[in-house]
Amino acid sequence: MKAPFTPPVRLDIDYLQELYQAGELTPRELLGQLDEYQTAFADRNPWIHYLTPEEREPFLQALEGHSPESLPLYGVPFAIKDNVHLKGIPTTVGNRHISILPEASAFVVEQLLAAGAIPVGKTNLDQFATGLNGTRSDFGPCGNAFDADWISGGSSSGSAVAVALGLVSFALGTDTAGSGRVPAALNHIIGLKPTLGRLSVDGVVPACQSLDCVAIFARTALQANQILSLADQRNPTDPWQRNSRPPRGLVSETFSFGIPPADQLGLTEYPEAKELFDATVEHLEALGGRAVEIDFHPFSEAAALLYKGPWVCERQLAIRALVNAPEQVHSAVVEVLAGSDKYSAGDTFNAQYRLASLKQQTDRIVRSVDIVVTPTCPGPYTINDMIADPIVLNARLGAFTNFMNLLDYAAVSVPGGFLENNLPWGVTLFGFSWSDTELCVLADRLHRRVTNTIGATSDALIPEDRPRTARTLDVAVCGAHLEGYPLNSQLTDRGAVLVRRIRTAPRYRFYALAGGPPYRPGLVRSEHAGVAIEVEVWRMPEDRFGTFVAGIPHPLGIGQLELEDGTWATGFICEPCGMEGAQDISHTGGWRNYMATRSVTEN
Amino acid sequence: MKAPFTPPVRLDIDYLQELYQAGELTPRELLGQLDEYQTAFADRNPWIHYLTPEEREPFLQALEGHSPESLPLYGVPFAIKDNVHLKGIPTTVGNRHISILPEASAFVVEQLLAAGAIPVGKTNLDQFATGLNGTRSDFGPCGNAFDADWISGGSSSGSAVAVALGLVSFALGTDTAGSGRVPAALNHIIGLKPTLGRLSVDGVVPACQSLDCVAIFARTALQANQILSLADQRNPTDPWQRNSRPPRGLVSETFSFGIPPADQLGLTEYPEAKELFDATVEHLEALGGRAVEIDFHPFSEAAALLYKGPWVCERQLAIRALVNAPEQVHSAVVEVLAGSDKYSAGDTFNAQYRLASLKQQTDRIVRSVDIVVTPTCPGPYTINDMIADPIVLNARLGAFTNFMNLLDYAAVSVPGGFLENNLPWGVTLFGFSWSDTELCVLADRLHRRVTNTIGATSDALIPEDRPRTARTLDVAVCGAHLEGYPLNSQLTDRGAVLVRRIRTAPRYRFYALAGGPPYRPGLVRSEHAGVAIEVEVWRMPEDRFGTFVAGIPHPLGIGQLELEDGTWATGFICEPCGMEGAQDISHTGGWRNYMATRSVTEN
Repeated sequence: MKAPFTPPVRLDIDYLQELYQAGELTPRELLGQLDEYQTAFADRNPWIHYLTPEEREPFLQALEGHSPESLPLYGVPFAIKDNVHLKGIPTTVGNRHISILPEASAFVVEQLLAAGAIPVGKTNLDQFATGLNGTRSDFGPCGNAFDADWISGGSSSGSAVAVALGLVSFALGTDTAGSGRVPAALNHIIGLKPTLGRLSVDGVVPACQSLDCVAIFARTALQANQILSLADQRNPTDPWQRNSRPPRGLVSETFSFGIPPADQLGLTEYPEAKELFDATVEHLEALGGRAVEIDFHPFSEAAALLYKGPWVCERQLAIRALVNAPEQVHSAVVEVLAGSDKYSAGDTFNAQYRLASLKQQTDRIVRSVDIVVTPTCPGPYTINDMIADPIVLNARLGAFTNFMNLLDYAAVSVPGGFLENNLPWGVTLFGFSWSDTELCVLADRLHRRVTNTIGATSDALIPEDRPRTARTLDVAVCGAHLEGYPLNSQLTDRGAVLVRRIRTAPRYRFYALAGGPPYRPGLVRSEHAGVAIEVEVWRMPEDRFGTFVAGIPHPLGIGQLELEDGTWATGFICEPCGMEGAQDISHTGGWRNYMATRSVTEN
Repeated sequence: MKAPFTPPVRLDIDYLQELYQAGELTPRELLGQLDEYQTAFADRNPWIHYLTPEEREPFLQALEGHSPESLPLYGVPFAIKDNVHLKGIPTTVGNRHISILPEASAFVVEQLLAAGAIPVGKTNLDQFATGLNGTRSDFGPCGNAFDADWISGGSSSGSAVAVALGLVSFALGTDTAGSGRVPAALNHIIGLKPTLGRLSVDGVVPACQSLDCVAIFARTALQANQILSLADQRNPTDPWQRNSRPPRGLVSETFSFGIPPADQLGLTEYPEAKELFDATVEHLEALGGRAVEIDFHPFSEAAALLYKGPWVCERQLAIRALVNAPEQVHSAVVEVLAGSDKYSAGDTFNAQYRLASLKQQTDRIVRSVDIVVTPTCPGPYTINDMIADPIVLNARLGAFTNFMNLLDYAAVSVPGGFLENNLPWGVTLFGFSWSDTELCVLADRLHRRVTNTIGATSDALIPEDRPRTARTLDVAVCGAHLEGYPLNSQLTDRGAVLVRRIRTAPRYRFYALAGGPPYRPGLVRSEHAGVAIEVEVWRMPEDRFGTFVAGIPHPLGIGQLELEDGTWATGFICEPCGMEGAQDISHTGGWRNYMATRSVTEN
């Protein structure tokens, strides 16, 4: 059975909200339809435990008394990797000797439940989250959403497949070495590995404790970012959660992106993947990007440390906390961890020093561009091939992912087209920690250029707004800061993005001030004789706003402007003294019109 | 020979600048006087190498052609701990078998040289910077500035003593376990241990590489902060330097401070130290502080990890990189590191997990208050007692310092009065990383209440301005945001501090706007009929400015105001429409006067 598949309902979060608000669907009806639809995919084996109607009932009942619009994830079905606790449902970590009955859900799960999301099942994984291929489960291999004979990727196998098949709107995974990105790439969906320590790992079974992240699989990058925002709550009892930081600014309309040179891509098994990568580069260039070749060797060297260094001891510590006998552990996992006891404390500190030195090199590279773009993995294998050569082939899958948490970067995997075998392939955008939203915004723009379907379904990618992020401020500009005008770089240099063009309320006079260049206008409120003036609203990281305001020369300043939709926005105002020598240009309706007239006159 | 001593010149940085600018002193004259003065303190043994006139000459020549005001540290003499490289002068790390001839100065030294500072000598230390007492040097013990029979504290022994005796204006040390704070406390000066990774450690011989900091000894906390600002440059080749972050806001006029309960202070050897600590608490209360008892056990548990855990392997790695034979290492250091080879990688990760868990506990405590205050160390020992019991007594000195870098806090040691034996004692203020300036500002206020002399000299503490920090913005307020008025908390909640009261240029009209409360004024520029209006300038962390501006309602806003001293400041402006129904109150000269009139009228 091959893709594309047509799920009973398109599962995008906003679309479900519309249906629920319009009364055209209820969460109970949706889940009933999904229950039936998912039975067709038993050969993919995405679930370790699909919740029974009785197990699911409390979550549905919790929605009662809430209107859809009151909960951001009202009735949104999601899946949970089976190393992340859901209260009352046994966690297996993909190992049949383990059955942990959690007394509480993981902290991130709690946040999503509180937002109204409905858990559908616990998903299959490479056991102990150690593996990138999806065959290392005691519950059987997980098949690719597009073709069950091929690997799903792992370790968050079932989570990626469930999203790709349209069984859920989104899914939680984990990602230490690539487990949230490789299966996303191999199933044609978005896989977000947020900043290490951004989401609480409380209630997540450790794989390699200092490097474990909760990952998000989603239909679009903006939906991934939305889930991230909702899950990103402070958990004061989690020692691994980092203090939150202001997000990095969004990339400008023009940006640079680093790519490994062709001879460092190593796409020998799928030569056509090189063409897909080149196509990605072209898409990014069409979006305003400028490709810059970077040296990828220090990233690769850091990647090698993950399994050829003392960090394997962390996995060993985690596994020994769960099972006593090596024979209870999957043979491939045993092989990966063999020799982990040989490392001393001195080896560990020396490896951490080496990593610090590599990070200094890679940070310099990452700092030289706005983002970095790589393949997510070289490409998929059949399940049979993978089982026949479980260590070598698995290691190849991590070439572009293993370094990410060691080096403290955030990353998102985006669909990158299809290989000649009709299986999907993916690319990864990555950048410094706390660039999650920046990455998602660009990933979304790339995604919509690369494909027009979601996962293994026939669902079309629908247009979507820019994300709302908590720590930005909007500023309305009306003159030299408009897009294309001389001071616009004061916005873009601060990572601001244009979010809308609108007019003020009809309560302003508009003046061309004396002096210049740069020529500048002044907006002056006039309750009784005003007109509406065109403005642009730019969204800027809050922490960059101070220097922007402080750099505005007299007689202009920043205050509050009333917009035509009745809202007020922070924006440019003008002191009364600015009127001296100024020319009333209110009749032009805006600076673009005025400047057009002016240049005509001057020519 | 006992304190106080009278140096030939008061060495405060600003004072030297005044003398140089007035032509009353030259750097060469100053150094000549200091050369002679310092000979009296051979019994303290602060130097491993005092620079010869020939070695110093290039630094003096480098000042030629520069005016004093063009270099912030023009002709300011400083000392360098002998584990920090000064180009061309052998580095010994306090061990007679080691002599590293550096081809370049340490990065931080380079920054200070570029600012015009003159290196005077390399200072004595506990070898390998392993020790807190000052007796573990192959070049002989370093004596306390107040009494040569007593320990100086360590490991940055000579650096602290040189500052305390007035041999230099400031000194560089290092601080891994307390080496920048304990000797400061025992010599009655300021010891700043900045945020781990804030200053580059390039050119610093490692002691315990993941935890090493450059420390600053200074005459006042604001001078320490000034040195920090100048040394705090980005070094792209240093893997240990962290990306810079916005500094935390300064503490408000009222603040809370955590203190260990009496039964966790353990000041049994010097019971009078408890009285000194109580006096510190009273001083801080007088400064607007409110004492809060905190549980100190998790801090103590973290402190114990430093020498009773795998981190001793880092010291062993560092020492083995420098000497081959154990017999070349000081016997106390050998004893401290005995058994370090027993730790495995698993032990290391488990210790790091334990530390993460403790940090989660301590962070919660630190977050519950504005800062934490402790003794810096219980108190001093005689050199003979220390040599007789070198491990146990040394360990006691670290009770309040060993945890600081492990837990990633910034700290400053401040004089805390004198013990009954007339030797100084000190307290430490600490807080989250990047709170360095916040700590220094409060430390300075505390310092000036506790004592009126500097170090072991008769020099008086002189009044000083608030520090300039790079990432703050000044905003001039004229109405409801003034100190004591209803909206002032919008400033103080953002960590803003009042930096000056001044008037505008005489080019404004001042209006009481219609509406309220809160009652608000508007400043309106008037070139020809203006008067000067009282404003307050508040200094706010740049990253908090955006929300402040965005929260200002129409018709007010933020623009540029001309001040009476001819400068322009970011400050409150008013839209023309604000004039409707407004009352011209320019004759009052400011909001305070106007509101006084108004309340009289209303009563």
